[in-house]
Amino acid sequence: MERPLILVTNDDSIVSPGIRLLIEVMKEIGDVVVVAPDSPQSAMGHAITINNTLHIDKVKLDPEIEHEYSCSGTPVDCVKLAVREILKRKPDLCVSGINHGSNSSINVIYSGTMSAAVEAGIEGIPAIGFSHVEYSWETDLEPLRGYVKKIAEEVLLKGLPEGVVLNVNFPKTNKAPIKGIKVCRQAKAMWMEEFDKRINPQGKEYYWLTGKFVNQDKGHDTDERALEEGYISVVPVQFDLTAHHAIQTLNNWNL
Amino acid sequence: MERPLILVTNDDSIVSPGIRLLIEVMKEIGDVVVVAPDSPQSAMGHAITINNTLHIDKVKLDPEIEHEYSCSGTPVDCVKLAVREILKRKPDLCVSGINHGSNSSINVIYSGTMSAAVEAGIEGIPAIGFSHVEYSWETDLEPLRGYVKKIAEEVLLKGLPEGVVLNVNFPKTNKAPIKGIKVCRQAKAMWMEEFDKRINPQGKEYYWLTGKFVNQDKGHDTDERALEEGYISVVPVQFDLTAHHAIQTLNNWNL
Repeated sequence: MERPLILVTNDDSIVSPGIRLLIEVMKEIGDVVVVAPDSPQSAMGHAITINNTLHIDKVKLDPEIEHEYSCSGTPVDCVKLAVREILKRKPDLCVSGINHGSNSSINVIYSGTMSAAVEAGIEGIPAIGFSHVEYSWETDLEPLRGYVKKIAEEVLLKGLPEGVVLNVNFPKTNKAPIKGIKVCRQAKAMWMEEFDKRINPQGKEYYWLTGKFVNQDKGHDTDERALEEGYISVVPVQFDLTAHHAIQTLNNWNL
Repeated sequence: MERPLILVTNDDSIVSPGIRLLIEVMKEIGDVVVVAPDSPQSAMGHAITINNTLHIDKVKLDPEIEHEYSCSGTPVDCVKLAVREILKRKPDLCVSGINHGSNSSINVIYSGTMSAAVEAGIEGIPAIGFSHVEYSWETDLEPLRGYVKKIAEEVLLKGLPEGVVLNVNFPKTNKAPIKGIKVCRQAKAMWMEEFDKRINPQGKEYYWLTGKFVNQDKGHDTDERALEEGYISVVPVQFDLTAHHAIQTLNNWNL
C-alpha cells in the first residue's frame, strides 16, 4: 500500500518544539510535507493575507524530510499555499500543532492551529489540530507521542464525517499519566479580558490584552471537564456555522 | 423607555462608507458608541492581538456622536476593548459592517466583520454583521438603509436565541430593487485559490492570494441562492463549533 501523504503545519512557527515532535511522529506513518509559519501566529484565528504578499522558503531542519517550507503567512495561508502550490496531490491527512497552549472550548475560535485544520477540512482533507494545555515551550511533550500516532492512524483508517475536523487537546502531564481519550463537546466558556493599561515614553496610553478564562459550563461531557480529569479531549468541529435550530424562530419574525 | 445603547464596529476601517451609513441608521434607533479599526482588517477572521500593544484614539468624524474611537487592533480587539474599557454598561446591540464584500457561505469564517459580531455574541450581546456583496467603496448603499433599520429594530425587540448572532448579506442593488429578506443556511461553498506568483526586484518569488468562488451547493435554502435571486440573506450563526452529530461516530472508534 502506498504510504499516506501528510501535510504538517501549526501556528507557533516552524521551529517550535510542538511541530518538531508532530513531524517525528508523522514520519513513522507516512510521507511528510511541512508548510508552517516563519514566525509565531498564535491567536490569528482564520485570518488570511490579502493585503500583503506571501513568501515561501525551502528549509532543511530535519535531514529526513525533503519537503519542508517556511511561510510568511498565517496558518490558513500555509494550508492554501501547500494545497495549491506545493503539494503534487491532495494529502491524505493534515495535522496542525502540537500547539503550546489550550485550544479547548471557546479557544477553538481564536486558534490559528485549529483554523489551519478547518481550512484543510474545507478542502476535503481529513484534519486534526493537536494542542497541549501548557503554554511553555519547555513542557515535556514525550507522553503525547503514542496518542498522537494512535489518533492520526485512526483518522487515516476510518476517515472523518464530511465537514468535520478534530480538535484534540492534551491535559497536564507533569503530575500524573494521561488517563485516556474522551470524545467531548466544546464547553461554554469565555475569556474575561483585563486590559493592562500602560503609558508609553511619549505619555500616550496603550494596552496589553490579558485575561482570565471563565468556564461556567458544569456539563460532564465537555472538553474542559475531560482535561481537568486528566483525559485527552477530542471534539469534532464543524465549519457549517449555521444555527439550524434558530431558522424556524427567525422565520416567525416580521422581516 | 431608555434609548438602547448600540456598539458599532466593522473591519474595513472607521472611515469606510459602510460603517458611516451603519452609524447614521443606528443614530435613529439609539445611543451609538463606535469602536472600529484604524486601518482595513478584512479577512482577519477571529484574530486577536496578543503579541503586540493596542492603541485607542478618540476621534470626531460625526458631530452628533460623542463616543467614537479608532483602534489599532483587529475587529475582535475592538469589541473586547469596547466592552471592557470604553462602554459604561453592556450594550443592547452590537452591529458590525456594513462590509464592502460578501460574507455569505464560507466567507463567514474568514470575515473580520462577522468575527466582531461573534465576539459580541460570546459576551452575551445581541449582534448582527451586515455585508454587501459588492467590494467597491463606490457602491450606492442607500437602498440598504430601511432594511438595516428594520432588522436591527427586530433584534432589539425580540432578542436572539442564546449563542446565535445574525449574518446579513445584501444582494446587488444596481439593477433591480431588493425583493425582500430570506432566512437561510450557509451554502457549502469554497474558494479555489489561484496564487499569482511574481518575481521581486531581487529575483525572489512571491505570491498574491487570489481565487475564484465555487458554490456546488444547489440547495434552495442557502444564502447564495437568496442573494442570486435578489433577496437579503439572514443566516443565524453559532459559535458552538461542536459537530454534535459526529460524537456518536467517534465514540465507536477504537480510541
